[in-house]
Amino acid sequence: MAEKIRGIFTPHIVPLDDHSRINEPELRRYVDWLIDSGVDGLYPNGSTGEFVRFTPEERRRIIQIVCQQAAGRVPVLAGAAEANIQETLRACETYAGFGARAVAIVSPFYYKLSPESVFAYFQTIARHSPIDVTLYNIPMFASPIDVPTVRRLAEFERVVGIKDSSGDLAFMMRLIAAVRPIRPDFSFLTGWEATLVPMLLVGCDGGTHATSGVVPELTRKVYQLTMAGQIAEAMALQYRLLELFDAMILSADFPEGFRAAVELRGFNMGQSRQPLSDAQRIDRAALSRVLQCILADFGIVQPPSEGCPPRTGQVQQDRVSQIAASVIEVLRERGLGT
Amino acid sequence: MAEKIRGIFTPHIVPLDDHSRINEPELRRYVDWLIDSGVDGLYPNGSTGEFVRFTPEERRRIIQIVCQQAAGRVPVLAGAAEANIQETLRACETYAGFGARAVAIVSPFYYKLSPESVFAYFQTIARHSPIDVTLYNIPMFASPIDVPTVRRLAEFERVVGIKDSSGDLAFMMRLIAAVRPIRPDFSFLTGWEATLVPMLLVGCDGGTHATSGVVPELTRKVYQLTMAGQIAEAMALQYRLLELFDAMILSADFPEGFRAAVELRGFNMGQSRQPLSDAQRIDRAALSRVLQCILADFGIVQPPSEGCPPRTGQVQQDRVSQIAASVIEVLRERGLGT
Amino acid sequence: MAEKIRGIFTPHIVPLDDHSRINEPELRRYVDWLIDSGVDGLYPNGSTGEFVRFTPEERRRIIQIVCQQAAGRVPVLAGAAEANIQETLRACETYAGFGARAVAIVSPFYYKLSPESVFAYFQTIARHSPIDVTLYNIPMFASPIDVPTVRRLAEFERVVGIKDSSGDLAFMMRLIAAVRPIRPDFSFLTGWEATLVPMLLVGCDGGTHATSGVVPELTRKVYQLTMAGQIAEAMALQYRLLELFDAMILSADFPEGFRAAVELRGFNMGQSRQPLSDAQRIDRAALSRVLQCILADFGIVQPPSEGCPPRTGQVQQDRVSQIAASVIEVLRERGLGT
Amino acid sequence: MAEKIRGIFTPHIVPLDDHSRINEPELRRYVDWLIDSGVDGLYPNGSTGEFVRFTPEERRRIIQIVCQQAAGRVPVLAGAAEANIQETLRACETYAGFGARAVAIVSPFYYKLSPESVFAYFQTIARHSPIDVTLYNIPMFASPIDVPTVRRLAEFERVVGIKDSSGDLAFMMRLIAAVRPIRPDFSFLTGWEATLVPMLLVGCDGGTHATSGVVPELTRKVYQLTMAGQIAEAMALQYRLLELFDAMILSADFPEGFRAAVELRGFNMGQSRQPLSDAQRIDRAALSRVLQCILADFGIVQPPSEGCPPRTGQVQQDRVSQIAASVIEVLRERGLGT
Repeated sequence: MAEKIRGIFTPHIVPLDDHSRINEPELRRYVDWLIDSGVDGLYPNGSTGEFVRFTPEERRRIIQIVCQQAAGRVPVLAGAAEANIQETLRACETYAGFGARAVAIVSPFYYKLSPESVFAYFQTIARHSPIDVTLYNIPMFASPIDVPTVRRLAEFERVVGIKDSSGDLAFMMRLIAAVRPIRPDFSFLTGWEATLVPMLLVGCDGGTHATSGVVPELTRKVYQLTMAGQIAEAMALQYRLLELFDAMILSADFPEGFRAAVELRGFNMGQSRQPLSDAQRIDRAALSRVLQCILADFGIVQPPSEGCPPRTGQVQQDRVSQIAASVIEVLRERGLGT
Repeated sequence: MAEKIRGIFTPHIVPLDDHSRINEPELRRYVDWLIDSGVDGLYPNGSTGEFVRFTPEERRRIIQIVCQQAAGRVPVLAGAAEANIQETLRACETYAGFGARAVAIVSPFYYKLSPESVFAYFQTIARHSPIDVTLYNIPMFASPIDVPTVRRLAEFERVVGIKDSSGDLAFMMRLIAAVRPIRPDFSFLTGWEATLVPMLLVGCDGGTHATSGVVPELTRKVYQLTMAGQIAEAMALQYRLLELFDAMILSADFPEGFRAAVELRGFNMGQSRQPLSDAQRIDRAALSRVLQCILADFGIVQPPSEGCPPRTGQVQQDRVSQIAASVIEVLRERGLGT
Repeated sequence: MAEKIRGIFTPHIVPLDDHSRINEPELRRYVDWLIDSGVDGLYPNGSTGEFVRFTPEERRRIIQIVCQQAAGRVPVLAGAAEANIQETLRACETYAGFGARAVAIVSPFYYKLSPESVFAYFQTIARHSPIDVTLYNIPMFASPIDVPTVRRLAEFERVVGIKDSSGDLAFMMRLIAAVRPIRPDFSFLTGWEATLVPMLLVGCDGGTHATSGVVPELTRKVYQLTMAGQIAEAMALQYRLLELFDAMILSADFPEGFRAAVELRGFNMGQSRQPLSDAQRIDRAALSRVLQCILADFGIVQPPSEGCPPRTGQVQQDRVSQIAASVIEVLRERGLGT
Repeated sequence: MAEKIRGIFTPHIVPLDDHSRINEPELRRYVDWLIDSGVDGLYPNGSTGEFVRFTPEERRRIIQIVCQQAAGRVPVLAGAAEANIQETLRACETYAGFGARAVAIVSPFYYKLSPESVFAYFQTIARHSPIDVTLYNIPMFASPIDVPTVRRLAEFERVVGIKDSSGDLAFMMRLIAAVRPIRPDFSFLTGWEATLVPMLLVGCDGGTHATSGVVPELTRKVYQLTMAGQIAEAMALQYRLLELFDAMILSADFPEGFRAAVELRGFNMGQSRQPLSDAQRIDRAALSRVLQCILADFGIVQPPSEGCPPRTGQVQQDRVSQIAASVIEVLRERGLGT
């Protein structure tokens, strides 16, 4: 039996060249950097990877490049949702051939399907897929997959896990409570890095986090600290990741904020296929400066030449470091730090 | 300048054969029947047409067949949304070549985009499309297109209309109030046949209605009666259409109820690419009988051999005919009938 | 049997004095003006009337004043919802004694109750109320009352109507279709003046409209024109009312925009019990000028001394009059005008 | 300066007698039991306490009884929201006189107010209240209080904390990050016991949990284990509490499931003022049996005489104990248990 899927997987953006084509050399360079920076796996063709903005041929090519470049160093979780079940199953076959560890299949989107339809959809895939399948629940974008449906689908051996991006911690606990007793090998991955530490503490096996495409060294550290029981340190870092996450997710249409941040790490991601209006281009430049300041706080990029807004002072002080300090203090009192 | 888009367009389902391929002969036969039954235009690759469940090649083939078969008898409004703007523009070119009157492009879906992003998306298309464009607003499935965005997009000559499926009558009035003064040629089409008569009365130019793929003779009649000012008669029929519409839309995941109904008109639509669970197959059979009874009330199909539930009696009486009668009576009192 | 409830009822605001007490003389003057201006009835203690911001004693006093002042000239529909059924029934008795025509009882709010609970609540009231009851459905604020629940409650003679403020025209049609055949005396009132004309055309008996507290002469005219079958004229006025309605409802927290507008008609409404922040006070002043311009367009108030923004010109022209003209033209073509 | 509000507060139900009046002796007995069972404070007139279903006089009487009976043994957090600010401030004065530690004031409900209005409302209260104020955010029932609004209100000394019942862990973290640096004395209480342990781990000071009115010994234990850093044991108990919580909250309109459960602890709560339909009475009886089985699992009540459904077996086994065991095992591996 294949090993359980664990750790932090990166649902990465795909760099584009000046003609809006896949920038293969940059993608390979990015994959290498992610692996070198310690991510546990790669997840091409996810929501962060803008899978819906590529053609079926491009989606195949992306998986091929990533599998080749990963070359077995880390497992690849390949987003495989296509227009219909037949096409999806063809993609599953192809990705099995490329050496992917498993596929991730988002619940049917556009139409909002009932739980029974969602079940029928995944049941058919589970019966015919030649490769392990993880369910992908992202109710803000696609038909929700509810707890009883996951419970029913967990009876198919091919279904080996779920990625949940709802951000609802109690929902994750209900999933674990419903499925883990009958499927100890089933993998629970959260897509909500805003609460990665708590998700791991309730029993998640890992996560697929867009943020790990920006600061892979830090998401790795959060994961390791948490798994080692150093909750106070993990939580302090979690609070800082939350600030970064919020800056990326709240300030532009997803995943544009993440693209801006990856560029600050030295990659040329190119322009999104979703165009920006003139007003948005200005906002994007401002966002980029804010992100640079936050990343500079982590010491992983230089601050912008024009400097960052003062983060210490009468009222706001150095918010980030102060929060981190106060959280550590509180948790240490509770015996959770070292 | 091309003629304004008006009347009832049919966003039709695509018949599939036993191998889940496009059933071309049946599609051509269905197109002929729709035109013969009096629809004002065809709208392939709409939401009812399950455009997301076909491959890009299939979507092209569907438009080609429909344009060929329509052969200029009625205009074709071709759903042209593809994975990204470049692909969409290629589809626009192809459909112009096929002789489509215009394309309909749904707002970006999956991601929920901000108004500014929706504007940027359609602006780019408007600037480069070789064929007239109608916007397609369906907020339950895709990023909403708000009034100011439509107002801004109406400044592009290529944008000639909007199909709105929100079902919100006040929203339609706000659209008309914002755009008609500056673009008298702009077409306002409703996708919500539940309120077709009122939509026409506030000034809509027509609609694209899945129901017209089931009972084209009746949607036509509703349209003609309303345009002729025979409101009481139109409204009585509207109430009966609402019952049919509700039965189709509330009893199964869209558009399965419509598929079941089209089959009752004598077309072999095949099985949906979205599979049905065992429980759903049973529900589908029950729904089919209910629809047959409703359609039999209109005198356009035979009632099921096992008969229909009695529709007259102490309390409920013949609900449909009674409502129709009471509505006519009230509206006649108000001087709206003949 | 009492006469069916019909026409336009005003859910009016209650003027407050400098100590935030009910300003009785101004309330009496306002009631007189509303009746003189042609409203068909009064509806104190509605949502516009901010019933939740008064104490139980104040709510009783408001009904008493309004019933006294109306003095039988128009019927009074008294909002009677209290903390629980026992208290509500006591209010019903009191209001029956005051001479109210009926009470209006909003669905339970704060908690979001299931349809079964909503039914149980109104069933108990229906069984014990000494006065006719109208249901009040306002799903944006209170537990929704769905169609089957209204159908079940319509079997109680005491329940004589429903006011629906959902703004959903198809929902209103479903209500009428479900209830009118068994209860021809049941009254359907819309609370959504944005679509008053269409609501009347599908068979509503009238409405309770906050806007009628601002421009009672115009809501009356819309109602009369529609009932007389002069749809084109009614619709032109409807479009202008929509602009006013939107200005009042979208620009401030409800019902502050309506309070600002009533003041422009010459009444001293006082300050709301919901305080305004400094920023909001500035917005309120700006809103007041906009409303004055819209009301001046109707010729019922003077324009502000600093003038109104030009409403004619290259692109925007006189938007209001132009829309009205184009709507009339279209509808006349359809034989709906005179 | 008063001590920071910490620990588990019980938002308790109010027992009613056969005439639907406050059952004072039973309320006093219940208060004693809660305190003896280890709750850290009492929170009368909360959502669980059905404050909206009592008259203003009854609400005062409830606080009076609870303060008297608590007699300083534990602090009382008194729900003080009334019809308007003036009435609310009067209640604040009264409750200060009764010896309450602080008041809790829910955000304005019925109307959905903008953040600016919510700010203006609480600002006025903060300026005039003679007693410490905690904000109460429960967006499913009342106008949401967003992070910037809490940040602004935290500048008033009188505002000493927030109870958040959104259940959104990231939202709680954002609150803590925004406010704790400037107000280390500010208390963060969660109202979502489904995730109590994670909430405490991100830095919450405690919670106000309806479940603590049912199993106060267990919520206390969860709190103590977490504060002592025994995460694995706390989490195992958390999973079991989640099952109980879900059974109470999902199976009936809130708070009826909690009332049913408190009765199983030996208190006569009487019938709710929100009546049950016949169908609901049957469901209530079934729910009561389920709850009895769950509580029997904890060893705190006897199982029903007819027994409980078998909880061990081929597939489902003893779900509760098994989950608890597997969670402990995983967390111990991570060094989080003893």
